[in-house]
Amino acid sequence: MIENAPWTKEPIRVRYAETDQMGHAYYANYLAWFEQARGAWCRDRGFTYRSLEARGLYLPVVEVHARYHGEIKYDDDIVVRVRVTEIRRASIRFEYEVVRAGSTKVLTDGYTWHVLMGSGRKAVSVPPDVRELLGRDPEEHATVLD
Amino acid sequence: MIENAPWTKEPIRVRYAETDQMGHAYYANYLAWFEQARGAWCRDRGFTYRSLEARGLYLPVVEVHARYHGEIKYDDDIVVRVRVTEIRRASIRFEYEVVRAGSTKVLTDGYTWHVLMGSGRKAVSVPPDVRELLGRDPEEHATVLD
Amino acid sequence: MIENAPWTKEPIRVRYAETDQMGHAYYANYLAWFEQARGAWCRDRGFTYRSLEARGLYLPVVEVHARYHGEIKYDDDIVVRVRVTEIRRASIRFEYEVVRAGSTKVLTDGYTWHVLMGSGRKAVSVPPDVRELLGRDPEEHATVLD
Amino acid sequence: MIENAPWTKEPIRVRYAETDQMGHAYYANYLAWFEQARGAWCRDRGFTYRSLEARGLYLPVVEVHARYHGEIKYDDDIVVRVRVTEIRRASIRFEYEVVRAGSTKVLTDGYTWHVLMGSGRKAVSVPPDVRELLGRDPEEHATVLD
Repeated sequence: MIENAPWTKEPIRVRYAETDQMGHAYYANYLAWFEQARGAWCRDRGFTYRSLEARGLYLPVVEVHARYHGEIKYDDDIVVRVRVTEIRRASIRFEYEVVRAGSTKVLTDGYTWHVLMGSGRKAVSVPPDVRELLGRDPEEHATVLD
Repeated sequence: MIENAPWTKEPIRVRYAETDQMGHAYYANYLAWFEQARGAWCRDRGFTYRSLEARGLYLPVVEVHARYHGEIKYDDDIVVRVRVTEIRRASIRFEYEVVRAGSTKVLTDGYTWHVLMGSGRKAVSVPPDVRELLGRDPEEHATVLD
Repeated sequence: MIENAPWTKEPIRVRYAETDQMGHAYYANYLAWFEQARGAWCRDRGFTYRSLEARGLYLPVVEVHARYHGEIKYDDDIVVRVRVTEIRRASIRFEYEVVRAGSTKVLTDGYTWHVLMGSGRKAVSVPPDVRELLGRDPEEHATVLD
Repeated sequence: MIENAPWTKEPIRVRYAETDQMGHAYYANYLAWFEQARGAWCRDRGFTYRSLEARGLYLPVVEVHARYHGEIKYDDDIVVRVRVTEIRRASIRFEYEVVRAGSTKVLTDGYTWHVLMGSGRKAVSVPPDVRELLGRDPEEHATVLD
């Protein structure tokens, strides 16, 4: 467990495409927002998820959990907060909170577990240099590469 | 808890739209499959989810959990098995298993919790007649209304 | 131009995921239905689009056009009719009509143009054996491989 | 026809969810980007599409056309340029160009036609005050409401 891991905050505006006839965001679309936030989390540490894949490393999701407490609607300005709470030998856990911009009320929370997969589509141990990337302090890596 | 609830089995063929560049189905799309299976579950009991909404009752998802054990790819013939495992005063729990057609190996499992919401967008107790629908034996309600 | 090309008919039931807050199917989702219908079109001729990719041939979309005449809603039973109307040296045109099951009223029509792309991500001429597949009479290839 | 209508430019970063197994953005997802750009176009004129719906006016898409010239991939920084090129009695035409950030090469272009629909789900003439909104000069309405 990583104590007090810093949050990365990714602003998103809800698309019409993401609503359903109940008049709010469809539950599956939050998972795409989680993914977008993970990409931002990497950038906050000076690397991109794309660069991991370019070297043959993938982070497929093996588990997801989400709780929807409050409604999110079309055109809402939301912020998806994301942080890493655990890194094991070959897996990593991200945690999420969705709030409306300017609010602290958590409307949705969730987590995902990922395994690190090599190009042979098998789980691999997190290499030391990737472990270094994941463990970076965003304060020291403000420059977004790419 | 409902013991030994019967499964409804919904066949689905994976769309190209549902894949991602990792070459398998993107994790969020399973949630749309779960939803499709819930619709089939209702039909197996002689009603449609649409008919519930027509009378002002909604079943928004308030929690989802899924574990992805094995890959599902484009054009795969899968079966989403779904059943209700618990009905509380104002909420209901569905359980899912995704297998390849003709196989018993569970590639993904999951559950969702729903609350019953009235047109005032507030949770309401499950009315007796809806409770009767949810508790039906599909063997006796083979006719799919529509 | 191919005169009187036969239609393949693909039945689809509209998902809740595919609706938007206007209460009907979101316009982008029709393109996924078109794609699903193209897959069925291949099967009607005894091959799968997947098998084309397996041998390094891809059919990316280079143009799409759709006109939405009538609304399609959640849980509607629709049929997407698809046929090939033109095959050029390295490109192919599919045509679509969306109707409600049991109806002949065209609710949406459209077409897509595709180029045949080899594994070098460059357009290639349609090889003779692929041209044979595309030109098949579905009456004689009822057996769906796979 | 509106001559030299100004473009609104909406930056978007491509999500993993939007890719397919061909390794690029799936063709249907561009339509969601077009929609996001339309929302930005409204904001550039000091109103939101949401506010139109709040007063019972809807702009469903009745036609779409897109041509895909160049590939767009995961994590690409793209810009969707959008402008209105025609306003008729009860319909409106948007035009789109998708470029990579910092580039002028048009990778995808397209257009959509919309009808103005009242709450009775019937086409209505564009009311004078809405016509004023649509005809605004963004230079004079820089303030984004909401």
